Amino acid sequence: MTAADDLADRVREGDLRIHELENHADHDTAAEARRLVLEDATETDLEAIGDYTFPAEAAEPNVENMIGAAQIPMGVVGPVPVNGDESSDGATDGDSSDGEATDADESAPNEGGAAEGEYYLPMATTEGALLASVNRGLGIIRSAGGATARVTKNGMTRAPVFRVGGVAEAARTVEWVNENTEALRKAAESTTSHGELVGVEPYVVADSVFLRFAYDTKDAMGMNMATIATGEACEIVEAETPASLVALSGNMCSDKKPAAINAIEGRGRSVTADVVISGKLVEDRLHTTPEAIAEANTRKNLTGSAKAGALGFNAHAANVVAAAFLATGQDEAQVVEAANTITTMDTREREDGTTDLYASVSLASLEVGTVGGGTKLPTQTEALEVLGLAGGGDPAGSNADALAEVIAVGALAGELSLLGALSSRHLASAHEDLGR
Amino acid sequence: MTAADDLADRVREGDLRIHELENHADHDTAAEARRLVLEDATETDLEAIGDYTFPAEAAEPNVENMIGAAQIPMGVVGPVPVNGDESSDGATDGDSSDGEATDADESAPNEGGAAEGEYYLPMATTEGALLASVNRGLGIIRSAGGATARVTKNGMTRAPVFRVGGVAEAARTVEWVNENTEALRKAAESTTSHGELVGVEPYVVADSVFLRFAYDTKDAMGMNMATIATGEACEIVEAETPASLVALSGNMCSDKKPAAINAIEGRGRSVTADVVISGKLVEDRLHTTPEAIAEANTRKNLTGSAKAGALGFNAHAANVVAAAFLATGQDEAQVVEAANTITTMDTREREDGTTDLYASVSLASLEVGTVGGGTKLPTQTEALEVLGLAGGGDPAGSNADALAEVIAVGALAGELSLLGALSSRHLASAHEDLGR
Amino acid sequence: MTAADDLADRVREGDLRIHELENHADHDTAAEARRLVLEDATETDLEAIGDYTFPAEAAEPNVENMIGAAQIPMGVVGPVPVNGDESSDGATDGDSSDGEATDADESAPNEGGAAEGEYYLPMATTEGALLASVNRGLGIIRSAGGATARVTKNGMTRAPVFRVGGVAEAARTVEWVNENTEALRKAAESTTSHGELVGVEPYVVADSVFLRFAYDTKDAMGMNMATIATGEACEIVEAETPASLVALSGNMCSDKKPAAINAIEGRGRSVTADVVISGKLVEDRLHTTPEAIAEANTRKNLTGSAKAGALGFNAHAANVVAAAFLATGQDEAQVVEAANTITTMDTREREDGTTDLYASVSLASLEVGTVGGGTKLPTQTEALEVLGLAGGGDPAGSNADALAEVIAVGALAGELSLLGALSSRHLASAHEDLGR
Amino acid sequence: MTAADDLADRVREGDLRIHELENHADHDTAAEARRLVLEDATETDLEAIGDYTFPAEAAEPNVENMIGAAQIPMGVVGPVPVNGDESSDGATDGDSSDGEATDADESAPNEGGAAEGEYYLPMATTEGALLASVNRGLGIIRSAGGATARVTKNGMTRAPVFRVGGVAEAARTVEWVNENTEALRKAAESTTSHGELVGVEPYVVADSVFLRFAYDTKDAMGMNMATIATGEACEIVEAETPASLVALSGNMCSDKKPAAINAIEGRGRSVTADVVISGKLVEDRLHTTPEAIAEANTRKNLTGSAKAGALGFNAHAANVVAAAFLATGQDEAQVVEAANTITTMDTREREDGTTDLYASVSLASLEVGTVGGGTKLPTQTEALEVLGLAGGGDPAGSNADALAEVIAVGALAGELSLLGALSSRHLASAHEDLGR
Repeated sequence: MTAADDLADRVREGDLRIHELENHADHDTAAEARRLVLEDATETDLEAIGDYTFPAEAAEPNVENMIGAAQIPMGVVGPVPVNGDESSDGATDGDSSDGEATDADESAPNEGGAAEGEYYLPMATTEGALLASVNRGLGIIRSAGGATARVTKNGMTRAPVFRVGGVAEAARTVEWVNENTEALRKAAESTTSHGELVGVEPYVVADSVFLRFAYDTKDAMGMNMATIATGEACEIVEAETPASLVALSGNMCSDKKPAAINAIEGRGRSVTADVVISGKLVEDRLHTTPEAIAEANTRKNLTGSAKAGALGFNAHAANVVAAAFLATGQDEAQVVEAANTITTMDTREREDGTTDLYASVSLASLEVGTVGGGTKLPTQTEALEVLGLAGGGDPAGSNADALAEVIAVGALAGELSLLGALSSRHLASAHEDLGR
Repeated sequence: MTAADDLADRVREGDLRIHELENHADHDTAAEARRLVLEDATETDLEAIGDYTFPAEAAEPNVENMIGAAQIPMGVVGPVPVNGDESSDGATDGDSSDGEATDADESAPNEGGAAEGEYYLPMATTEGALLASVNRGLGIIRSAGGATARVTKNGMTRAPVFRVGGVAEAARTVEWVNENTEALRKAAESTTSHGELVGVEPYVVADSVFLRFAYDTKDAMGMNMATIATGEACEIVEAETPASLVALSGNMCSDKKPAAINAIEGRGRSVTADVVISGKLVEDRLHTTPEAIAEANTRKNLTGSAKAGALGFNAHAANVVAAAFLATGQDEAQVVEAANTITTMDTREREDGTTDLYASVSLASLEVGTVGGGTKLPTQTEALEVLGLAGGGDPAGSNADALAEVIAVGALAGELSLLGALSSRHLASAHEDLGR
Repeated sequence: MTAADDLADRVREGDLRIHELENHADHDTAAEARRLVLEDATETDLEAIGDYTFPAEAAEPNVENMIGAAQIPMGVVGPVPVNGDESSDGATDGDSSDGEATDADESAPNEGGAAEGEYYLPMATTEGALLASVNRGLGIIRSAGGATARVTKNGMTRAPVFRVGGVAEAARTVEWVNENTEALRKAAESTTSHGELVGVEPYVVADSVFLRFAYDTKDAMGMNMATIATGEACEIVEAETPASLVALSGNMCSDKKPAAINAIEGRGRSVTADVVISGKLVEDRLHTTPEAIAEANTRKNLTGSAKAGALGFNAHAANVVAAAFLATGQDEAQVVEAANTITTMDTREREDGTTDLYASVSLASLEVGTVGGGTKLPTQTEALEVLGLAGGGDPAGSNADALAEVIAVGALAGELSLLGALSSRHLASAHEDLGR
Repeated sequence: MTAADDLADRVREGDLRIHELENHADHDTAAEARRLVLEDATETDLEAIGDYTFPAEAAEPNVENMIGAAQIPMGVVGPVPVNGDESSDGATDGDSSDGEATDADESAPNEGGAAEGEYYLPMATTEGALLASVNRGLGIIRSAGGATARVTKNGMTRAPVFRVGGVAEAARTVEWVNENTEALRKAAESTTSHGELVGVEPYVVADSVFLRFAYDTKDAMGMNMATIATGEACEIVEAETPASLVALSGNMCSDKKPAAINAIEGRGRSVTADVVISGKLVEDRLHTTPEAIAEANTRKNLTGSAKAGALGFNAHAANVVAAAFLATGQDEAQVVEAANTITTMDTREREDGTTDLYASVSLASLEVGTVGGGTKLPTQTEALEVLGLAGGGDPAGSNADALAEVIAVGALAGELSLLGALSSRHLASAHEDLGR
């Protein structure tokens, strides 16, 4: 009888509880015992789940009652060309389809991005055709000289809700907060060696006061850091004002819920990627026209989303965000708000009368990190290493910024590919109409 | 030199393209070759990613450019008591904490749910403390006699957008659609052996006409089925009306974007889980009161979400949805709308003057399936087997219904646990206030 | 001492309460007495407010505690060309600027609209420049051969909320409702000679069941009709199901609140107006180009609104709706949702290579009536008479439909004028940039 | 033949255009001539519209093509007790129902509000029963010792949209703006003697940059002031950055559209009014209980609105806002966002075991002024005088603040009255249920 068999028996006999097994054996044995109990109770065979290859204790910070692992197929897309030497504001004619650089212009428009050069982006998914589609889009972006990407805002937020006696007290509390930001900063930052308080925004609804704390959490996604720091600051608020803490998260953060406040004010990284693609390239590679793509985008991603009461004005950015999150150890539940994206596709006239396509994605609240959380698991670490972005960046925060930019370009590629496919079918159909 | 080395060389030499490797070797060798190329290009070691244990060709419908797998730690929570014999509308006093059933009343209130009994729910996540939290909530639900859950609506949607000349044509198109639903049904259902068209809802924005097709896709999540069937129906619309198809998805579906239309009208399964918990049980196990939990829920999940402009009125339903989706092979990107949840927590007075807590979650658009997609991968299939819900149900659709109900109860447990923790801290703090 | 003086004294002495005055004198005297009390209490002179010219008793259904009237300046715009003989899908070159009709084409695209011909639209407002702006837009629409307008959906809604024991009862209630629509229809329609129940849509959130009743209320705005009819139907629901009515309006109606459900599903009339304007006309009259207007619309009304988390994707439709509502006796508070509008402005290529502008407004939930409510007051009745739409239409509902269409064209004119002004300034500025 | 007849003839003959009449006669004659033309063209008699009593030239800043006035019945509600001497945080037992003050406690919780004492609020409406309902609510608020109200935020906004070449330029533009706020302030404030720039918030969507300027506009509603000042600041932005102005309003302002940005960040005044009402008073006057009102509010205003995808979580705040706006010369089209309100109704336990009702309304974006716009018209000025708030306040801004607070208390009264009515019916019905 193995140690796992023995433990399983003790669980069945009520001698041990299933979550206590790690106290009585090493993590792998505990997981094995748990599988035995479960196989018995549910008449199943958990061979595949038990065939994980990381040390079970490595997952201790990530899961309880561990029985093994889900294996999600992982592929790779790329190279993803981000903020290279090319002018991002021009559009090449497609003769640099292998990613060969055109001459940089002197103004170096790509200074300022954290990512630079070409990246391979691992993606884990069960959505067939996704990686093929993204790769098709990336090929076109490469031919166009690469994409530009920028983190335009950065702040991980936590917004506790306090109870006050009424609006008179609410007003006094807000006044105190506005006058004592430095005290709050000192308290908050005392809990962290890396994080910096960016600001505190108060909101009042009657006898509820919400304080939205925003932090620069550098290369960490930072939710825990923000929560701990905010908890410390809350103690001062409670001591100095009539406010009494009801919940450390009052949903104006807003974590893992779609919310306009994130779409407007951002959370984590706000990041845009864009590219200008010549009409010739659109025709050669996507078999459609800039005009047709722009029309499809307007009807679907803008008008359709508007009519649907949406908080996301894009085609399928969530596919890329979710797959990249899974591969690189991000928090899968944050895909909810991380995928919040406005996609724009517009025509631009050149002086020579030809038409380019300007394509972009703007992700308002992409919460990413390259340290902490799921990033330390073996397959996830390797995926970050493939990107060259594992661990803390130099300067601090630059790895997470770069990861945000690469994911944004991946999402842009996915949007381009899908809208191109839609509009080429539309164009074909339109041609048929004319041919009749 | 292995076959993989050889293939890798040919890629490096430009002789083969990286996505063509499966044409020249078996899937495992192709993946290995791809890793070799990537390791070389990025100076990494992809040992963990390459240490997947499913047959590579099994992942062919799920991924391209495969290099291996992401391994996500998986644990299990439960038992999850759903629609058992107990009265769901009463509340026990906590003496049935091991899930022992109280006497069923005659009205059998739990008839009608697809799930019945106790389930173990596998969850894959990197979010530490999540499973412990859900398990704590489940323990209380079991002590309260189990939760009730119902799928109250079911329909996978696809909403193409058509271009017309103007509103006069739009009105004519809508009129035609309303009068020819049967023709559309016949076309749509000709493409599928299982799916049934539930309805077609037209929406007009100027010269864009959106038709939102809804299908009963039985045990499949059904996105592909809905897309193919809708494509067939669109051909008739184009043939019989002035409308010209612009995009098979016009974003009123709405897939992988947070949108009010899903929150209102539903997508996939609309499912509610609820439970009544006695005040004594709340105090014994959560160390707080029904009143304090209700207050925290109102300030955070209702008022806070309202002020945030949210489409989700809950604490962290996405955590449970995402982890269950990962474990059971659902589409991770659909967590975006699948997590859309309204959580309610209210007090209910009993005749004896004591107070119960009524707790619920209502997920408006939970897209789940037990066949197709990622459900066929080995670890995912095993997770569905643990639930007893792998493959098609009898009657068709009952397995996916039951999966929706079990996930909903899991989400309810997560909400209860988190709100209990928040309000017990609040209560402690309130007591301190009074004690001074 | 006048009768009013005497009444005022009795109020001051506490002998009469201020809302009881109509019991002791005619309505004008009561209003006068009320002014006397108020002038005394607030040291004011209410001469202007007291200088109303309608019989005070005529206002009894509209106001309590009447002291007189607000006088809002009223002007007129027009002619508003709606659904005339012209082809709405072509675009004239501006030579019919006086509204002269071009030859109708045979397909008579404007069949189907309720409005037909030219209308003068009275507008009451304090917003300077508004009428001038709308008139400028109307001039261009006339030159383009008039606008097309259609009511694409019609249904005044009322959505009570019921309490049930839990989701099991909720599911049973919904099932009963779906199977007994005819019984609900019979009850609802028993309360009205005109109204017809269009449908009942159930929505479940845990132990709350919402039933959204929609009615064709013909020429009445219909809020009261819908409320009374729904109240009758609720009694049956309460008698036959476990559901207990909590509020006759459960906010899913949704009356006088901005809500996605109205924007998506409509309330009152859903109406679109559109027009095609030749590039030459845009240049001659708006001093800009179709391309520049389309760009301004996309950046402002689509992208800007998307980023703002808006439920309205337009420039200033509310201005036209509010002013027309005031003039014609509609419910001013319903401007909140009645103004919900998506404006589109797109270029269309002609075969000759020139570019037209396609411009539209789609108002999702325009609640209007030509009978009942404020429409019976003298100035409001006259305004409806100017439109030729006072009282019930033939067939019933056609007057309210036509009013909706005329207001929509007015809103379209306002959008055109404002976007034209914005983009001509932009164009001027762009020219400056170019060195000219 | 009168002068008006003569002018009318000249219009009919095409000699004059209808908007030019003021160039040829005084304003009253011009309006008369316009009525003659219109009466002739539409076969109507515009006697009532022509029976306005203000000098026509007084309306010149407010309307073009004037033909007369809409007369909207005006009544009065009150007294509205705001920020009196009473403790706002206690609740009296209803013995001060005539507005008699209870002893003030020392902490003077009502310091800080702009309104103080009792106000009569004129309301113009055609919605029967509205004023009676508000008065009923006010009576209860008076009996409870009056309401507390506070403006918690103040800022009229204008948000232009600029075009840039791409996100690289967008990032540079945002950086410049953040570093040059003082230059923008100087430019903006150079255009106004009263207004002060509160802040500039940049938002990026790809190649669109939005700058949301917020101003303290004192006693003016301030839209025009904000627009002119922002226009001046935009010139600097265009001169110093690559950004090119597309539209002075880019819809992130957001004016006259429902938008989350206003609901979250505020526009004009953010104002809350609240009151604590004893259970006895609720029973005596509303014939219901605090618990029943709280339940109705939660199901209807919170849960129902959540499910409806609403931006307004209230019962009928728009009714009070619209009627007060009409009476006092505010911009009727701004009711769209001004009515954005969250209503909360919660029970509060007293130490003696009895239960109070805490009731509140929080209006996020109430745009009001006491100078400028429609406030100068005679009936509107009188209405402001009744309030004691006509013209500029001392200190500047205090009149508009006070107006906001009084309207908020009016809205609170309306909510209380309606929710009381709903829940007393519900209670009656519940009693019947129990009686069976």
